[in-house]
Amino acid sequence: MDFLKRQAALRAHLRRQHVDAMLISHLPNLRYLCGFSGSNGLLVVGPRQTTLFTDGRYREQARQEVTGARVVIETKGDLWRAAAAELGPKQRLAIEADRITLAQRKRLFAHWKGLHRLVLTQGWVERQRVIKDADEIAALRRAINLASSVLEATLARMRRGMKETELAGWLEFSLRQAGGEGLAFETIVVGGARGARIHGQPGPQPLPRRGFVVMDYGVRLAGYHSDMTRTIHIGRPTAKARQIYQVVRDAQSAALAAIKPGVAASAIDRAARRVIQKAGFGAYFPHSTGHGVGLEIHEAPRLGATSQDLLQAGQVVTVEPGIYIPGWGGVRIEDVALVTATGAEGLTPTPKELLTYGL
Amino acid sequence: MDFLKRQAALRAHLRRQHVDAMLISHLPNLRYLCGFSGSNGLLVVGPRQTTLFTDGRYREQARQEVTGARVVIETKGDLWRAAAAELGPKQRLAIEADRITLAQRKRLFAHWKGLHRLVLTQGWVERQRVIKDADEIAALRRAINLASSVLEATLARMRRGMKETELAGWLEFSLRQAGGEGLAFETIVVGGARGARIHGQPGPQPLPRRGFVVMDYGVRLAGYHSDMTRTIHIGRPTAKARQIYQVVRDAQSAALAAIKPGVAASAIDRAARRVIQKAGFGAYFPHSTGHGVGLEIHEAPRLGATSQDLLQAGQVVTVEPGIYIPGWGGVRIEDVALVTATGAEGLTPTPKELLTYGL
Repeated sequence: MDFLKRQAALRAHLRRQHVDAMLISHLPNLRYLCGFSGSNGLLVVGPRQTTLFTDGRYREQARQEVTGARVVIETKGDLWRAAAAELGPKQRLAIEADRITLAQRKRLFAHWKGLHRLVLTQGWVERQRVIKDADEIAALRRAINLASSVLEATLARMRRGMKETELAGWLEFSLRQAGGEGLAFETIVVGGARGARIHGQPGPQPLPRRGFVVMDYGVRLAGYHSDMTRTIHIGRPTAKARQIYQVVRDAQSAALAAIKPGVAASAIDRAARRVIQKAGFGAYFPHSTGHGVGLEIHEAPRLGATSQDLLQAGQVVTVEPGIYIPGWGGVRIEDVALVTATGAEGLTPTPKELLTYGL
Repeated sequence: MDFLKRQAALRAHLRRQHVDAMLISHLPNLRYLCGFSGSNGLLVVGPRQTTLFTDGRYREQARQEVTGARVVIETKGDLWRAAAAELGPKQRLAIEADRITLAQRKRLFAHWKGLHRLVLTQGWVERQRVIKDADEIAALRRAINLASSVLEATLARMRRGMKETELAGWLEFSLRQAGGEGLAFETIVVGGARGARIHGQPGPQPLPRRGFVVMDYGVRLAGYHSDMTRTIHIGRPTAKARQIYQVVRDAQSAALAAIKPGVAASAIDRAARRVIQKAGFGAYFPHSTGHGVGLEIHEAPRLGATSQDLLQAGQVVTVEPGIYIPGWGGVRIEDVALVTATGAEGLTPTPKELLTYGL
């Protein structure tokens, strides 16, 4: 990863905004700019120097991970004090208004002597992160391929009466065994009527004797996240189940086909939603169609009805329409796509035919 | 869980502070006060009514989980706007200063008409949560017992050349199979010299032929977190390894023995640290001795040198001294203890003898 290039791009932005330095507290932004992956850190990007502040637990790790930043180990426990001590007087300092709490700002001011001015910013680093560079796209591909590769073998482990938590366990174990460094988010495995819980947690309930099972899962690899959903059916699907599956699949195809640079992100959402509405299920698709993914599982752009984002080449987004009927169940199909110069490249290799299993 | 009783205690506090209502955005506090476990929500506790704001993804889940609060599903995507619309004019509103970002406060003000006054607070709900009620202690016991129960069988799976990620995978799978609803935090499995990374992630490195392996892991069950560390040895330990293990064990015993209501949390840290310093390893114990645990993996009190907290009956804390020598490895032993009327009750049933494995 070319951290120095990323820092140079941020510095150029700071100069254009007439800001002397930026204090970055959002951890994925730290990782993006200098490679640090610990859970506690502050980064100050000044005109010539970048400094990472972290605590004693990360001494070893920072030494190995960080590129392009001086590392300061703060042993007294207050990184805000340490960072404030580094800031000159009379500085115009940019901070991340959507990441810093009121209490943190107070700590910063308590320790920062002299004349200064805070510039409240939002998304300065995140906007850089929206366009993935070649290293990032390669890292995303590796994570996505890893996650896709374990699905089939996991599904072969299903047994009648298996609990949702156990199926989730096998999925997560396979991700680990294949080298995953962590889960991208909390695995969703919900069967039967529980599939209507869009963000449901796996529970002690057995897989349904007959019905859908929604599996939404991902892995983190070198800091980058995969995200995919497949919905499989146990037993013979009813005509209604087949119809709903097909509607969701068609909605996803429509959304994927609509992706290209310059198109409004909201238009992608509209493309998926139109298919679901036409089939009469509009009331049962209560979430947006997708989101960017990278060092965070949810990033810009947002593929939703009210999104103001525009698609650009180099963005990586999920496309994940669904239909959820309370008391009956849910279907969601989710892939990751790279916005290319001319359209979209699907990055998720797993097929999307309706898979049925007899247990 | 007695949500109404918790809300009543908070209301009494609001009255004493001459505040009309409190807007709560920290998710574990929402769960504590009304049972909601979703990832997006705001709670307004008014003088007579409690209202939960969440989005359409959580309609089903909120219906099933929430007790003692009216549920408002906000479909336009901005919970701050929805909450502001509910607030009366001329109100004194408490907000969580250490949870609300500068940008969120701005959104709140943008939608909140009329005269009003924000009261910046920190820890009002967290201070209630510090003392666990009987239901919470039972939930913590269940999580801790579950996590303890899987260790032995997981260790029996170790094989020569097994990767750290694979051992972590078996551990996590066993937690799932036993009914865990998620991990309490990212599992740490680091072997040999990598054990000096206090918060290290499991990697593709094989377990050492001879050396320590630090395993720090936990499970979430009904929202409550377990937390334990055991360090095992592969191959015959050297005299130095045995000595260091014993020092850490003695430090932990000293800390556990020092726990009782009314004692300063910093004194517990001092008790552990003194043992490690006397043995000459003071420079290699760079973190604090423990922390509270409950609906969050890190809560008050903090058992560290600079902590201002006092121990009280009903608190649940980790006790986890360690020694980490760069280039050599690390040892940490961690249990959870309940502060009782007269001392401490260890909640972690797993033994602490040094276990050695020949692979």
